[in-house]
Amino acid sequence: MSAISAGGLAATRLSASQPQAKARSVSILGATGSIGSSTVDLIKRSPDRFRVEAVTANSNAAALAMVARELGARVAVLADESGYAELKAALAGSGIETAAGEAGLIEAAQRPADWVMAAIAGAVGLKPTLAAIERGATVALANKECLVCAGSLFMRRAKASGAAVLPVDSEHNAVFQALGAGRREDVSRVILTASGGPFRTWTLDAIKAATPEQALKHPNWSMGPKVTIDSATLMNKGLELIEAHHLFGLAPDEIEVLVHPQSVVHGLVEFRDGSVVAQLGPADMRVPIAHCLAYPERLDGPVPRLDLAALRELTFENPDLTRFPALGLARQAMIAGGAAPTVLNAADEVAVAEFMAGRLSFAGIAALVEATLEAAGKRGLLAEPLSVEAALAVDHTARGLARELLLNNAVKAF
Amino acid sequence: MSAISAGGLAATRLSASQPQAKARSVSILGATGSIGSSTVDLIKRSPDRFRVEAVTANSNAAALAMVARELGARVAVLADESGYAELKAALAGSGIETAAGEAGLIEAAQRPADWVMAAIAGAVGLKPTLAAIERGATVALANKECLVCAGSLFMRRAKASGAAVLPVDSEHNAVFQALGAGRREDVSRVILTASGGPFRTWTLDAIKAATPEQALKHPNWSMGPKVTIDSATLMNKGLELIEAHHLFGLAPDEIEVLVHPQSVVHGLVEFRDGSVVAQLGPADMRVPIAHCLAYPERLDGPVPRLDLAALRELTFENPDLTRFPALGLARQAMIAGGAAPTVLNAADEVAVAEFMAGRLSFAGIAALVEATLEAAGKRGLLAEPLSVEAALAVDHTARGLARELLLNNAVKAF
Repeated sequence: MSAISAGGLAATRLSASQPQAKARSVSILGATGSIGSSTVDLIKRSPDRFRVEAVTANSNAAALAMVARELGARVAVLADESGYAELKAALAGSGIETAAGEAGLIEAAQRPADWVMAAIAGAVGLKPTLAAIERGATVALANKECLVCAGSLFMRRAKASGAAVLPVDSEHNAVFQALGAGRREDVSRVILTASGGPFRTWTLDAIKAATPEQALKHPNWSMGPKVTIDSATLMNKGLELIEAHHLFGLAPDEIEVLVHPQSVVHGLVEFRDGSVVAQLGPADMRVPIAHCLAYPERLDGPVPRLDLAALRELTFENPDLTRFPALGLARQAMIAGGAAPTVLNAADEVAVAEFMAGRLSFAGIAALVEATLEAAGKRGLLAEPLSVEAALAVDHTARGLARELLLNNAVKAF
Repeated sequence: MSAISAGGLAATRLSASQPQAKARSVSILGATGSIGSSTVDLIKRSPDRFRVEAVTANSNAAALAMVARELGARVAVLADESGYAELKAALAGSGIETAAGEAGLIEAAQRPADWVMAAIAGAVGLKPTLAAIERGATVALANKECLVCAGSLFMRRAKASGAAVLPVDSEHNAVFQALGAGRREDVSRVILTASGGPFRTWTLDAIKAATPEQALKHPNWSMGPKVTIDSATLMNKGLELIEAHHLFGLAPDEIEVLVHPQSVVHGLVEFRDGSVVAQLGPADMRVPIAHCLAYPERLDGPVPRLDLAALRELTFENPDLTRFPALGLARQAMIAGGAAPTVLNAADEVAVAEFMAGRLSFAGIAALVEATLEAAGKRGLLAEPLSVEAALAVDHTARGLARELLLNNAVKAF
């Protein structure tokens, strides 16, 4: 079941109704999540410009089948093998091939699409994304773990295969666009903006005691719970520092974070002559996704025009590392390199889950991450992972370590 | 005296001490004015990167001689022939060639420099700048009249010769940099920012009665009196609309003005996918000049880094055409095309001079420009000037027309 069944191929070819001339062939790994759905939305608005090769989803067979039919995809792959029968039934007679499981995801990534949206969330996205990169595709990268857990490896492989990596994240996409104004060697500094999250104006004591309900109220972006909590601790911005470090080949001291509560300016690039080039836009992920989809061309965007006069003011402040220690921890992990970012990310996932379950205070999130990094260092776990398997092993070990520290009360839960 | 004397050529070659390898050969037309002095300052900071061919000035022979010696220029040309003896004496024994007069300026522009700063102010800058453009040089354009009075002609000639035109003005330079983030055909809108000038928050009645002293207090930029008064009326931004129209080949409805009192964001480009790319920087002309000097590379800039957190806020508002009618007049002239912008500019020069002399109210500036445009239309003077001579003739006629309107009390002076 893990290999793509060849039976439907002829039928797929016959049923293909999209114009082929000059259309970009695309695959969407993670087509039913938030980024995937926005990608699907944009493709449906410009059907002549795209031909869809593969679409994948984690477990929602019905949603995947619908997306595959809507886009006229050639193959649909479900990560969760238990839903395969449902997917197959839902696509019966459509001519769309089906598959399931990890091998199916990797095969989907290997299908000959010029452009691949890598939007599978979490560590399970590493291997399929790497498969797309290794065949030299243009990869729109929305999976955070590829760069955080195995950034050096991914960028090395991309360089070797000639794959173009386009950042989907609004901050990195902004920097990527701004970099177009000059040469890489003339960049003196890159600045990622942060909304500051729901606790930007709170006191340290109030933040320490914040509840999951309070932490889930993000001022500007509508996102999943994990990333929303990470925005409240600023760990999200810390992980983005690490991503920028790898994506753009920047030294740690060339990357800064600037708090900008309105989330209109997404990222800035300073050149050595003093010019600063920035990308601005509404807080709508379809803007950076559209940029990646058409790059180096552009699509007509469905979002309202930015109206700065209506917004009236944009404000900026430096991040406060005392109230938001997670940002400092992430910077330390970026500087340390090796597996430190992998451990940071794994410990943070455990910590956020514990916080959401009411078993850890908000202050405990950063405390657990810090303790896990320290314990991992003592156990000699921070060497550079040289393969995806090695990165996944560090991730697994670090999660165990974090849980162990909690069980042993090595970190104060409240 | 108007032709460059050939006698000094051998001596110049012998005395040339700059490294020649990979250095960019540059000429500075208008080397002792504000833009020229900043250009000289930047070249002196990176002496290995530049070899100076020609420098010119209007009438200050002593200042020109000093600049020519400092930069090791090959030739120095004074526009005002009456100062030629002084220039020649000041450069005696230096090996630097000298010349004077209009023909000398044109010959300076024709000397084989890869890059030319066109910073001669006023209509007298038209012919030398055109000479540099016609030989296909890269021209950093700081002269407003080239685009305002003969924009179609200049851009046509630049296209024919392959000359690159780099905008020096901070707003257009910002747009030029931001355009690097995409393809020209994907641009949906260009926005030039305006400080709003000293009367941004004043009532219409207070503005109408403003004195020259009040109008000369520009909040952010230190500039000459004419452009400072034009900033107070917003005519300066109107002339920049016309320049942007020609420089970037934009339709009138693709160019907007946004009031931004802090003058940190200088210009913005909106792409059709909703992304807006902007250039920001301190209000220091050395930033855009450095960009032009090194383009497509960059120079180390001597200006302090932009610190958005220290600035705290950037604000934006739409321009008010009721209180600032000059901006609306300029937009009408841009839409009308032909010689309308030439007439607008000539009438504005007369009006500002009359205002500075206390013979015209602040409100009278826009009123005189409007009346002159109307009179020029009635006399059939608004056809496209097809040569620099024709543009200069329209300019001359329009100035006479404006003075005539004032003498005949056709425009209320107070």
